[in-house]
Amino acid sequence: MFKLKNRSDKDFSLGWTHEEIITPLVKEFINSYKNLPFYAYQIQDKFRDELRAKSGLLRGVEFLMKDLYSFHADEKDLDSYYEKMKKAYFNIFDKCGLSTKTFLTLAAGGTFSKYSHEFQTLTTSGEDEIYLCKKCKLAVNKEIIKQEKNKCPKCGNKSLSVEKAIEIGNIFQLKDKFSKVFNLNFVGKDKKEKLVFMGCYGIGLSRLMGAIVEINHDDKGIIWPKEVAPFLVHLIQVENNQKINKAAFGLYEDFQKQGIEVLYDDRQDKSAGEKFVDADLIGLPLRIVVSERT
Amino acid sequence: MFKLKNRSDKDFSLGWTHEEIITPLVKEFINSYKNLPFYAYQIQDKFRDELRAKSGLLRGVEFLMKDLYSFHADEKDLDSYYEKMKKAYFNIFDKCGLSTKTFLTLAAGGTFSKYSHEFQTLTTSGEDEIYLCKKCKLAVNKEIIKQEKNKCPKCGNKSLSVEKAIEIGNIFQLKDKFSKVFNLNFVGKDKKEKLVFMGCYGIGLSRLMGAIVEINHDDKGIIWPKEVAPFLVHLIQVENNQKINKAAFGLYEDFQKQGIEVLYDDRQDKSAGEKFVDADLIGLPLRIVVSERT
Repeated sequence: MFKLKNRSDKDFSLGWTHEEIITPLVKEFINSYKNLPFYAYQIQDKFRDELRAKSGLLRGVEFLMKDLYSFHADEKDLDSYYEKMKKAYFNIFDKCGLSTKTFLTLAAGGTFSKYSHEFQTLTTSGEDEIYLCKKCKLAVNKEIIKQEKNKCPKCGNKSLSVEKAIEIGNIFQLKDKFSKVFNLNFVGKDKKEKLVFMGCYGIGLSRLMGAIVEINHDDKGIIWPKEVAPFLVHLIQVENNQKINKAAFGLYEDFQKQGIEVLYDDRQDKSAGEKFVDADLIGLPLRIVVSERT
Repeated sequence: MFKLKNRSDKDFSLGWTHEEIITPLVKEFINSYKNLPFYAYQIQDKFRDELRAKSGLLRGVEFLMKDLYSFHADEKDLDSYYEKMKKAYFNIFDKCGLSTKTFLTLAAGGTFSKYSHEFQTLTTSGEDEIYLCKKCKLAVNKEIIKQEKNKCPKCGNKSLSVEKAIEIGNIFQLKDKFSKVFNLNFVGKDKKEKLVFMGCYGIGLSRLMGAIVEINHDDKGIIWPKEVAPFLVHLIQVENNQKINKAAFGLYEDFQKQGIEVLYDDRQDKSAGEKFVDADLIGLPLRIVVSERT
C-alpha cells in the first residue's frame, strides 16, 4: 500500500481496497433485519504498489475498479447471493468476448473463507500462472495448488496444465471480518443483535479493457465486441463534395437520432487509405463507407 | 505536490496539474499550421498538498477537475479563444446558479502573463479573500492588490470590499512556456518552424458541486438548479396498494421513456413525513407526489 505524509506531517494512504470506507458508511443505513440485504457499489480509482508494473492497462499502479459490497442477515443469504454473482460475472465476461478464455480460479480465502474466487483470462501477456483442469474447467492458483497437492480440488484430475493468465475480477466472502471490526450490527427478527455478513465483488475495469484487446485483435488492430465497443459504427467519408458531405452527414444524424453511437471520420486532410488503416486499428464492430463509387 | 516511492524505490508523484502530460501527448498530433488550433480536454482526479484541507468538497486533498488545453499558431488566436472561454465559463456558472455570486478575479500570471484569471464565488465558507470593486464587478486577489496599491486596476476605484470566496475555476495563458520545454513546434504557412501557443482552462468539478450547494440551499437542504440537478424529478409514492403502485410506476416509466431523469422513492418502510424530509434534503427541482388523496 502506498503511504505518504502531507506538509503538516499528517498520514495519508492511497486506497488499495475500500472495505474500511464502505463498512462504516453503510452502518448509517443498517439497523434492522428489514434493511437487509443491502448492496452498495462504486467505480473508483485504486492504487497498488506493484513491484512489476507493466503491460500498460494490464498491470498498472493506478487502475479503475468496480466494487460491489453486499450485506446480509446470515451466511445462507450471503452464499446464495455469492452464487448469483458468479453467474453475473460470467455473463459480463461473455459480453466482453472473453468467455472461452476466462476461468473461475480458486485462490486463498484468508482467515474466514477456505477459498476466494478469481476470474482469470488466459493470455500470454498475463503475469499470473494458473493450474487449469481441462476436465472440469476449474483453475487454481499457485497458493492453492500446493495445499491441494497438484490435483484439481473438484474432480481429482492430476494432469493440470499451467497457463499464463490475467486476473480481471474477483469475488470474496468477507463474512463478519469487517462488520466485527466496525461493529456493523443489526437487530434480527428475534430482537437479538447480530453481526452483518458481507461479500465483495470486484472487476478491474481498466485491466478488463486491456484483456479484451489482448484477446480480441488481429495484426491490424483491435476487434471490439459490440457490447463493449466505444462506438458501434465507424462512418467513413472518403471524398469531399457537397453531395457526399450531405449524404454522410445525413447518415450520421440518423444514427444519432436512433441512439446508435457512431464515430464519424470526416477528416479532410486524410486519404481514404489512412482512414481505413485507422479504422482497422480502432476496430469498431460496423463500418460504413460513403463515397462517390458506392 | 505529493511525492512517494514504491517498493522498488522508484519515484512517483500524484498529479496536481497536467501540462507536463498533455504537451508531449499532443506533440503526436501537431506538425503543421493545418493542425492548429487544437483542443484537448479531460476530466481527471488531482491531488494537492493543502495545508488546511477542510469544508468537505470545498477544499479537498483529492478532487475532480475538468481541464481544457488549447493550442494555437500565434498569440492573437490564443487571445481570441481566451476571451471566448471567459464567456463560456460565465455561461456554465450561470447554469449552476452561481452567476450573481461569481466574479472574474485577477491573479498573478507567473512568468509569461501579467495576469491569470480565477472565477471566485462569494461564500462565507470560502477560504480565499478577494478585493471586490463593486463599480466594475472586477475582483483582485491579495497578490495583485499589493501590486496595484489597493485600487481597482480597471477603473481606479479605491473603496474595494474584502469578501470571502471560493475559487471554482481558472484560466491561464501558458503561451510558449511548456511548448518550449517539450519542443512543441509546428511548420507555419511560411515554412518556418514556430512554437505553439498554449492556454489552459480548469473547473474544479467536485469543488463546484460544493459551491453550488453553499449558494443554493435553505435550512431544510439543497435547492438544485435544474441544469445541474442529479435528477429533474423526485417522484414520491406515499401509500402502497395495487392502484397507487400502478399509477406511480406508470409515471416513472413515462418519465424514463421521455428521457427525463427521475428519482423514484418507492420505499415501503418509510412514512410520508420521512420521504418529504429526505426530498427537502436532496432538493430536486420538481416533486411529484402520488397518493390516494391527490
